[in-house]
Amino acid sequence: MATTFPPRVRLGMVGGGEGAFIGAVHRIAARLDDHYTLVAGALSSTAEKSLRSGAAIGLERTYPDYETMAREEAARPDGIEAVAIVTPNDQHAPAAEAFLKAGIHVICDKPVTTTLKDAKRLKALAQKHGRLFAVTHNYTGYPMVRHARRLVADGALGTLRVVQVEYAQEWLTERLESTGQKQAGWRSDPKRSGAGGCIGDIGTHAYNLADFITGLTVESLSAEVSSFVKGRVLDDNVQVQLRYAGGARGSLWASQVAPGNENGLRIRVYGSKAGLEWMQEHPNQLRFSPFGQPTQVISRGTPAASPDAARVSRVPSGHPEGYLEGFANLYTEIAAAIRAARPGKRQRLDKAVTFPTIDDGIKGMVFIETALKSSAKDGRWTKL
Amino acid sequence: MATTFPPRVRLGMVGGGEGAFIGAVHRIAARLDDHYTLVAGALSSTAEKSLRSGAAIGLERTYPDYETMAREEAARPDGIEAVAIVTPNDQHAPAAEAFLKAGIHVICDKPVTTTLKDAKRLKALAQKHGRLFAVTHNYTGYPMVRHARRLVADGALGTLRVVQVEYAQEWLTERLESTGQKQAGWRSDPKRSGAGGCIGDIGTHAYNLADFITGLTVESLSAEVSSFVKGRVLDDNVQVQLRYAGGARGSLWASQVAPGNENGLRIRVYGSKAGLEWMQEHPNQLRFSPFGQPTQVISRGTPAASPDAARVSRVPSGHPEGYLEGFANLYTEIAAAIRAARPGKRQRLDKAVTFPTIDDGIKGMVFIETALKSSAKDGRWTKL
Amino acid sequence: MATTFPPRVRLGMVGGGEGAFIGAVHRIAARLDDHYTLVAGALSSTAEKSLRSGAAIGLERTYPDYETMAREEAARPDGIEAVAIVTPNDQHAPAAEAFLKAGIHVICDKPVTTTLKDAKRLKALAQKHGRLFAVTHNYTGYPMVRHARRLVADGALGTLRVVQVEYAQEWLTERLESTGQKQAGWRSDPKRSGAGGCIGDIGTHAYNLADFITGLTVESLSAEVSSFVKGRVLDDNVQVQLRYAGGARGSLWASQVAPGNENGLRIRVYGSKAGLEWMQEHPNQLRFSPFGQPTQVISRGTPAASPDAARVSRVPSGHPEGYLEGFANLYTEIAAAIRAARPGKRQRLDKAVTFPTIDDGIKGMVFIETALKSSAKDGRWTKL
Amino acid sequence: MATTFPPRVRLGMVGGGEGAFIGAVHRIAARLDDHYTLVAGALSSTAEKSLRSGAAIGLERTYPDYETMAREEAARPDGIEAVAIVTPNDQHAPAAEAFLKAGIHVICDKPVTTTLKDAKRLKALAQKHGRLFAVTHNYTGYPMVRHARRLVADGALGTLRVVQVEYAQEWLTERLESTGQKQAGWRSDPKRSGAGGCIGDIGTHAYNLADFITGLTVESLSAEVSSFVKGRVLDDNVQVQLRYAGGARGSLWASQVAPGNENGLRIRVYGSKAGLEWMQEHPNQLRFSPFGQPTQVISRGTPAASPDAARVSRVPSGHPEGYLEGFANLYTEIAAAIRAARPGKRQRLDKAVTFPTIDDGIKGMVFIETALKSSAKDGRWTKL
Repeated sequence: MATTFPPRVRLGMVGGGEGAFIGAVHRIAARLDDHYTLVAGALSSTAEKSLRSGAAIGLERTYPDYETMAREEAARPDGIEAVAIVTPNDQHAPAAEAFLKAGIHVICDKPVTTTLKDAKRLKALAQKHGRLFAVTHNYTGYPMVRHARRLVADGALGTLRVVQVEYAQEWLTERLESTGQKQAGWRSDPKRSGAGGCIGDIGTHAYNLADFITGLTVESLSAEVSSFVKGRVLDDNVQVQLRYAGGARGSLWASQVAPGNENGLRIRVYGSKAGLEWMQEHPNQLRFSPFGQPTQVISRGTPAASPDAARVSRVPSGHPEGYLEGFANLYTEIAAAIRAARPGKRQRLDKAVTFPTIDDGIKGMVFIETALKSSAKDGRWTKL
Repeated sequence: MATTFPPRVRLGMVGGGEGAFIGAVHRIAARLDDHYTLVAGALSSTAEKSLRSGAAIGLERTYPDYETMAREEAARPDGIEAVAIVTPNDQHAPAAEAFLKAGIHVICDKPVTTTLKDAKRLKALAQKHGRLFAVTHNYTGYPMVRHARRLVADGALGTLRVVQVEYAQEWLTERLESTGQKQAGWRSDPKRSGAGGCIGDIGTHAYNLADFITGLTVESLSAEVSSFVKGRVLDDNVQVQLRYAGGARGSLWASQVAPGNENGLRIRVYGSKAGLEWMQEHPNQLRFSPFGQPTQVISRGTPAASPDAARVSRVPSGHPEGYLEGFANLYTEIAAAIRAARPGKRQRLDKAVTFPTIDDGIKGMVFIETALKSSAKDGRWTKL
Repeated sequence: MATTFPPRVRLGMVGGGEGAFIGAVHRIAARLDDHYTLVAGALSSTAEKSLRSGAAIGLERTYPDYETMAREEAARPDGIEAVAIVTPNDQHAPAAEAFLKAGIHVICDKPVTTTLKDAKRLKALAQKHGRLFAVTHNYTGYPMVRHARRLVADGALGTLRVVQVEYAQEWLTERLESTGQKQAGWRSDPKRSGAGGCIGDIGTHAYNLADFITGLTVESLSAEVSSFVKGRVLDDNVQVQLRYAGGARGSLWASQVAPGNENGLRIRVYGSKAGLEWMQEHPNQLRFSPFGQPTQVISRGTPAASPDAARVSRVPSGHPEGYLEGFANLYTEIAAAIRAARPGKRQRLDKAVTFPTIDDGIKGMVFIETALKSSAKDGRWTKL
Repeated sequence: MATTFPPRVRLGMVGGGEGAFIGAVHRIAARLDDHYTLVAGALSSTAEKSLRSGAAIGLERTYPDYETMAREEAARPDGIEAVAIVTPNDQHAPAAEAFLKAGIHVICDKPVTTTLKDAKRLKALAQKHGRLFAVTHNYTGYPMVRHARRLVADGALGTLRVVQVEYAQEWLTERLESTGQKQAGWRSDPKRSGAGGCIGDIGTHAYNLADFITGLTVESLSAEVSSFVKGRVLDDNVQVQLRYAGGARGSLWASQVAPGNENGLRIRVYGSKAGLEWMQEHPNQLRFSPFGQPTQVISRGTPAASPDAARVSRVPSGHPEGYLEGFANLYTEIAAAIRAARPGKRQRLDKAVTFPTIDDGIKGMVFIETALKSSAKDGRWTKL
């Protein structure tokens, strides 16, 4: 019997207009596996820029603002089923609220909000309206991250003992935000970014990655939050110690002032039987080291990579997949969930999903708030 | 003034149905930057499989065979502007001929044909009908390959002396073709693949990459073509010495029986002033070694990567782009050429293009035929 | 004018007999550049084993114990000028004391003692008797570590901000000490090793390396000291946060339960202008990353490596020097100091030396004691 | 029972005086494991320089020339048992002849002579006088090279198919020999170096390494020998194709004009079951890739490294051993053979030895001569 291709998910976008970075990434990610049609958007903070940005990418329906968009799309029979929110952090919550209330699924960039309170409120709203709320902690979409999680879950590492996760960048080594650079501008402004700088922008990714791979629960943490560049208000370097339930110990380092590091997300996990290492900049390989045996270099696309990795893989081993493919994996999994939730389908929103959700968003906000609290109290160990 | 998005290129596809590998790659590559709409196809060798394959990917217009497709699409006002030919090698020439005669641009996989004669005929046809003929030597689409070419062109290496290029794989170490695996099957069958096995499948990529980066002309070559696996008809390992005009010397090694190598395309170029090295499996970095100074690791997306690289780059440094992105770069450049050639536009088909064309396809066929000839004459140096 | 080779330094050794590891390393290090003659030793803890161990290596004068050795060697006109102490930690102090009092220079393994108090006492003794006290923090002997220090000293990194140093091993992942393995046995026994396990054995090396390269002063630290293997008394994993004078922040991780890590000493230093990275397992290269420019891979033996590195280098670039050569560099520098202090020479003992001394040993003991104190107080930031 | 250290081998040296490189390497290699005492030498080509060079390293007996040295040492009861010959190539044969005739074992640098004829004559002389003739193809002394050889011998790779060996350097990219640099001077002078430049200096090492690891016999070769630098007489780049008995195929590339390569000796061997890769610049690891399984990174000093590797290893895994240690391994093995051949010992000179001998030296000369012959005949396949 022939498989018939199901209708593409009708997608809208808020943010991602002129000068933005992550919006284009979301659009490519949505397009890559052909599960979405981007049909509507409110891409910028002003009506004029929104219209211009929409025209530039050939968007069908462009709105001056997200409130109008949510209202009008909800009213159309061919209106969007989901919206991607890719604005600066402070706009995530109000935009998400508008779409959830309009019955539209939300795909939101991270950190999910600027406060933990907002994040919890969004979760309640999503539940109330029975809508999906996905958060694009995209690094969990890499095939070899999936394989790492599988190795841990299968007990290949034994009892976990030590987690070393780091996310090092160099781009804020100098005071880029004072040059008018848009990305640096909002990220270093507490009003738009929230209370966390580096910790919110990339620290949450590192935290989420460790959470995703290890499945361990952080019980308490001790944080040292720093801001090295003169005139910078938010943090640009954080060092966090983690105590996990069950006795494992972790270190998390995130920095945006580390010259020589482009996008250095890297995790190492050690257990009683084996260790593993994965680096985002060379994402197609995972090093797996059973104690007493040679380290194995496991490649995406090979028989040694588990079905969990193979499922989110497109091309054979040695043909590198990268950042956009990992990002697209989340979009593809989200599309499956959206389709499964369509009228007439058996609802599966409450089932286990592989993509990050508002729960992960909340974990991220808890992390930020706890770390800032610990740092303010001279690094005191603080419960989450 | 607002930039308005130009109409997407209407694309058709021949081949790429059930069990195929490269067809899906072409589709993703076409979709990635949103310059194409795939609207028609004859995806398999039988009518039934074609229809089933079309339905599986939600294709608008599916044809039982490419002749029908070429005829009917040419007759529609909204017919395809270009066709991607992704069949086994032996179907490239007849399919391309049908579409060129129907006035449709051709994007063809490599090696472009099974004989040099066919390749030359296609070139003549393309010229006669004024249509584009692109060949997807996709590895030239990688940003750091573009940067390598720029370094050579700018004289950063001085006078070129030595070129070492290799393309090593492991997947045919055992006799996979006898297991029914589709990819191995046609690639090892001279009737469908042509006279070259490994040399045609990947040797031509290596040859093309060296050609693209160095700009040197090969004058003669000496080849040693081998087949190691019992029962295999075509070659699975080739070692070729190259003499370039101007005195440079090259070595090319291609193998599909090298365990530990997934898709090991790698090039090193040495000149009187500097050397460079690039590896496809870690494509975002290029090693550049000015004589007497430390080796520099130049990353895609950084200021040190030339505009040639930046132009075909989507995400910042440290966010790895891979195989599909490199492939998509060719599709995007081809789309620009197709749009420029639309009625009413100033024709630019005869201008210099950055993507590979039938001329590169012909070079590849010359390489295969000359290498086989040299090998048959015990490695005699043979003019191209 | 001809240079005449000065008489070799007459060396003795305490410890390093049967089943020992580091004794043989010291002997090779002393021999490598031909500045020493090993003439006497008390190599084991019992007279019988000492004699047997001495015979096995062809030692001229073997003593039953170090007290006898110190006394008799001091009385000979051709007695040893220096002694290498390579016993388990608890014997360092009494042995060193005996030789210092006998007027013999001391070269002592690390950690220098089992208590800070002992270390301070040894310093006073060395000063009183006008003898050298070198401590073999051997990793400072690597040429590219010297180059790293030079880069920092020359301001190439700008103002230092972040130091990440780690030393990860795997060998104590299981309870090796209960199998009778000699190295694991004494290292995990507080009576012979002192209060620190992993922190003393390798944490002090990491601490010393950061100190040597950065020249920064640690003001306070917060430590998390763990013991993961059941039945193990001493720590096998430590995570330490460091606050440096001047505002820089550091993280130090040392572990002996990290499968996949053989001897993973690695340091990264970031400043306002550049970053650097060095790894002990591939010691001949240093990565130097000036902000905004490509990372440079600087190799030992090349023009880019400073004279500080060249001075302690024997063979050209690309001919790897390793652990023993780095160790030997300290011995060679110590020999120069010993010769300069010979009767009739102009005393230079109080001059700046490049090799680590009792002062570094004391710093190591302060580090251990402060870290254990901090950890006992739930990671409270503790002044050094 | 106690093991007693046997008397050290009394060693002499010819060459290795002022401005030399390899002489110091031999001296360190001889000293490292304490099996030799260097007691006599004729270190330079003039009497005055010889005496000065001897004094500079504290040599006991210095001779004005090697003829005198051979004669007088042979006459002493405590005369040298072996001599290391480390002169430019043209002096190897006459010096070796003098010492063999005097009944002294010879340790000779490579290439062993400047002509094949001389090499064969030396072999006959060594046999006639019953003396050892070792040739320092030092790269076979690396532990992981021993492991590679073991893997092949044990059939872990299956039937060998492809050998890729290369030795790339950069130091002769410009015309260094015209600056007065001593190393470049004699190496580029056919009178002192012989007919081979790069091929003799490093090509023979690559050839020997492939021979040592694979155990395959080269039946014929096709060579392309080039000289790229203006004014240079000898070759600085060679590309050689190899046909092995049994059907395997090889490529050998040696270059001294490849910027970015310091001492890039690297070998890859592929068989029907697995592949392996080893690189001299990071010699402590070997990559082993069983077909269909992940690549294993096997480290020196770990349980996965065979006894053959462990036997020539001094320090634990992760403590890198390098060039000098590999070189020293040969010296240590040669010392064992010399001691075994001492009067009263059971002669074992005709037994299998692990270090390279005059037979390997002869193979190297055959390689050079055949390659030059092939290249002169436009790369014709030429039997060895």
